Amino acid sequence: MTPDPVTNVITELVDTYCAAWNDADPARRLALLRSVWDRHGTYTDPTIHLTSAEELSDHIGRVLTRFPDTRILRTSAVDSHHGILRFAFRRAAPDGQTLRDGLDFGEVGVDGRLRRIVGFFGPLVETANRS
Amino acid sequence: MTPDPVTNVITELVDTYCAAWNDADPARRLALLRSVWDRHGTYTDPTIHLTSAEELSDHIGRVLTRFPDTRILRTSAVDSHHGILRFAFRRAAPDGQTLRDGLDFGEVGVDGRLRRIVGFFGPLVETANRS
Repeated sequence: MTPDPVTNVITELVDTYCAAWNDADPARRLALLRSVWDRHGTYTDPTIHLTSAEELSDHIGRVLTRFPDTRILRTSAVDSHHGILRFAFRRAAPDGQTLRDGLDFGEVGVDGRLRRIVGFFGPLVETANRS
Repeated sequence: MTPDPVTNVITELVDTYCAAWNDADPARRLALLRSVWDRHGTYTDPTIHLTSAEELSDHIGRVLTRFPDTRILRTSAVDSHHGILRFAFRRAAPDGQTLRDGLDFGEVGVDGRLRRIVGFFGPLVETANRS
């Protein structure tokens, strides 16, 4: 898989988004988010559904208060087609331990910003390969 | 993870959807799809974007002509929240060999049918855990 220009642009979007998750400074965090977030962008994970960059920034602030000095790390390449993307991430403790693994699914809007992130936590539960 | 009623309903939707992928009879396949497919449902994978049950049924027919007697098997539990779902699948050859692994994301519409399936092929490419 050779990165193409579209993949590079989408990967940059995702990395700025992840950087926002790791910035404890509210003003800087919101500025990072706004630089990649669609005006109508939504964020949804198993615990919450949010409908603006401001709400998401506040949510990240609460998470960082609860889990100080933890970081979100992208742990896979960003895989995308048709403006839809997926990537794996983990939340790492200051000592490097993994607090949570997850998978984000996202959509890029017509203006080239993230209009949706949907997060899933943990691994998929494998089932027997049914016939 | 104890299955709850919503999970059971969504799993049934997905299993009917997968059954449609395995039915070489065009009329029966379309009937299966229509029973779970939202009127405005879309299907997108790396190769194609389709906007109706009829288009999707025709697409499945072409795939089954190209890969006769292969089957789509769901290989994970269906993980869902907020009407959004993910599950792993594989296309198995008649001898059981895996031709393709994939991950489907989906959305359930207000009428309880699939309004979107987005497929990704292959595993995510792991990256070094950056700090």
